[in-house]
Amino acid sequence: GAGFVLREHQHIRYNPLRDDWVLVSAHRMKRPWQGQGEKPVQEDVPRYDPSNPLCPGATRANGKVNPEYESTFVFDNDFPALEPDAPEPSVGDHPLFRSASAQGVWVPEHRVCSHRTPPPSPSKVMCFHPWSDMTLPLMALPEIRAVIDKWAELAVELGATYPWVQIFENKGAMMGCSNPHPHCQVWASNFLPNEARLEDRTQREHLQARGQPLLLEYGRLEAQRKERLVVENTDWLVVVPYWAVWPFQTLLLPRRHVTQLQDLSADERDSLASIMKRLLTKYDNLFEVSFPYSMGWHGAPTGSHLGEDCGHWLLHAHYYPPLLRSASVRKFMVGYEMLAQAQRDLTPEQAAQRLRSLPEEHYRTRAQ
Amino acid sequence: GAGFVLREHQHIRYNPLRDDWVLVSAHRMKRPWQGQGEKPVQEDVPRYDPSNPLCPGATRANGKVNPEYESTFVFDNDFPALEPDAPEPSVGDHPLFRSASAQGVWVPEHRVCSHRTPPPSPSKVMCFHPWSDMTLPLMALPEIRAVIDKWAELAVELGATYPWVQIFENKGAMMGCSNPHPHCQVWASNFLPNEARLEDRTQREHLQARGQPLLLEYGRLEAQRKERLVVENTDWLVVVPYWAVWPFQTLLLPRRHVTQLQDLSADERDSLASIMKRLLTKYDNLFEVSFPYSMGWHGAPTGSHLGEDCGHWLLHAHYYPPLLRSASVRKFMVGYEMLAQAQRDLTPEQAAQRLRSLPEEHYRTRAQ
Ligand SMILES: O=P(O)(O)O[C@H]1O[C@H](CO)[C@@H](O)[C@H](O)[C@H]1O
Ligand SMILES: O=P(O)(O)O[C@H]1O[C@H](CO)[C@@H](O)[C@H](O)[C@H]1O
Repeated sequence: GAGFVLREHQHIRYNPLRDDWVLVSAHRMKRPWQGQGEKPVQEDVPRYDPSNPLCPGATRANGKVNPEYESTFVFDNDFPALEPDAPEPSVGDHPLFRSASAQGVWVPEHRVCSHRTPPPSPSKVMCFHPWSDMTLPLMALPEIRAVIDKWAELAVELGATYPWVQIFENKGAMMGCSNPHPHCQVWASNFLPNEARLEDRTQREHLQARGQPLLLEYGRLEAQRKERLVVENTDWLVVVPYWAVWPFQTLLLPRRHVTQLQDLSADERDSLASIMKRLLTKYDNLFEVSFPYSMGWHGAPTGSHLGEDCGHWLLHAHYYPPLLRSASVRKFMVGYEMLAQAQRDLTPEQAAQRLRSLPEEHYRTRAQ
Repeated sequence: GAGFVLREHQHIRYNPLRDDWVLVSAHRMKRPWQGQGEKPVQEDVPRYDPSNPLCPGATRANGKVNPEYESTFVFDNDFPALEPDAPEPSVGDHPLFRSASAQGVWVPEHRVCSHRTPPPSPSKVMCFHPWSDMTLPLMALPEIRAVIDKWAELAVELGATYPWVQIFENKGAMMGCSNPHPHCQVWASNFLPNEARLEDRTQREHLQARGQPLLLEYGRLEAQRKERLVVENTDWLVVVPYWAVWPFQTLLLPRRHVTQLQDLSADERDSLASIMKRLLTKYDNLFEVSFPYSMGWHGAPTGSHLGEDCGHWLLHAHYYPPLLRSASVRKFMVGYEMLAQAQRDLTPEQAAQRLRSLPEEHYRTRAQ
């Protein structure tokens, strides 16, 4: 339209993956901020602390002792949100009071099949590295590659039983992470969670309507348009999606039509390690702080879905970082966002441009 | 099911208003918390501060001077997310890159109709009281009634033009509120935001399927069952909804089939003031702190929808408070919640029981 300037004028953008909208009001960055400042991100983490239950050799709350691990280390969550064998609730007595089980296995017959081995615990913790003061962007490429291999292994192991295996990392106290030791979690479930159901529907409808997977078509267009591109290599690209909600939200996409982590080739795993290191280094460099975020992987459903055609899916990772203006000023997703619609204060193109322009060498290792 | 104990065993519950699910894992409250503590809620706010732009007589950022108001005071937001007259974006060039205007009026013809008076500014701030150290639960009933009357007035004024008028209050720095002076905001828009579209669809489908409005049927059942009831009076009830996501989330419902704020009778406004004061007093008493939350009103769409049949709607308010364990430990809606599904750590029945058992006299006015 005449006079419309993307970086100045409010508009709404459609998110085809979630079938909803975001309000973009770029001019809001001009507003002064007098609200809450965040606590400084903890930068002085001791490398080894025997009282930290994630450290090699430490004793956890349940009395188990961690091995002296030297790479990744996976164990069952001592305080799981999902337990493998909780009893089932009775079926709700009214359509407005509906509940369902959230546990071990989807197919109820499995529960009476006594010779069957018990399902693996659905809640796991995975340490990335033996050092508590390490983070993914500071790790060497083979170390990151080991994390990726372990993710793929867990996706296979838990995916044999569970329809959804959610791998996610909460990084930083601001994101509810209660332990600075580099780690992620895996919560598998006997149901498709909301976000999985939503992305399954939108990707299925898109393939039917346009004959190509939604995110494959999207990635190809973004690779051409370039204005929202942050980093890319032969196998992967990272964009601030057109419909991003969080200020510096990104979407990590493979160029090939791969639907699950375990299907990545050795080369693709190496190039994934490389692009993750580049993205996360830029994130840390943005405000010269260990950048908080929640991230996680989405891929085709597993368990009882393993035999289905999931060609509408494309494997991808979402990064949701909360910071907006500086290391201590975050975006609050509150009143209007909770009650009406997500709202952002700078355009995705502005965010991508800022991330693109940052150096790929980490501020903590750069020559002074 | 045999052995299933609601307060001990994980399950998922259906939210019929949003058509999604929440994971309830009550046993997680047993887990120790070593993560981030919140800053103490500010309790020493000066009653009058001439440099606070929300105070009577203060000068705002744009040079305008506030009147010496003695009750409520409404003004146009100086840093609005929605402006009345932003130019329109060009129509997206691809189904994966869709945008639309977010501004003044829905019906494009209005824009060329030059004799028409310009639409009211869609972003307003409303002060509840002249004193900065006042909050709704501490206000007298006639003062709260004045707030309700002003809400209804704004709903009429903005609803004449805009299809959605979102009234919301962000209370407390934890909820992104940048000014302790008691106030709320109104953001009106030329589109139905996501949450409005969703609730419009689910309520419409429920009425078709069951012949009664969703929330009217729900409220009647909760009034009988009582286990999730927090407070009630002749015209209103407050419940922790069966599908609550936030630990102490509540839903405020009228007993009569009323669809919009402006349709409330004088008696209903008085009893609304009373039930709000009782609910918010309990909230403050829970952790003996001025309880942070975001709240907002949802009612039938307005503007071009005013002529339509909106009988599937019931007016209601949502309260979304972040605190979980104490004045300084909040619930983080992060990794799993962002990537998969909301998860809560105590049951709605437990939360309702705790709120119910609290005194209705405010801890700050109670005799020592
Ligand atoms: O306009 P305010 O109160 O400064 O801003 C606050 O509420 C807005 C609407 O919920 C949010 O978008 C902002 O992130 C929050 O800080
Ligand atoms: O299990 P953690 O890391 O202690 O807990 C953290 O992540 C969970 C999953 O996103 C959230 O439900 C918690 O609120 C958060 O504090």
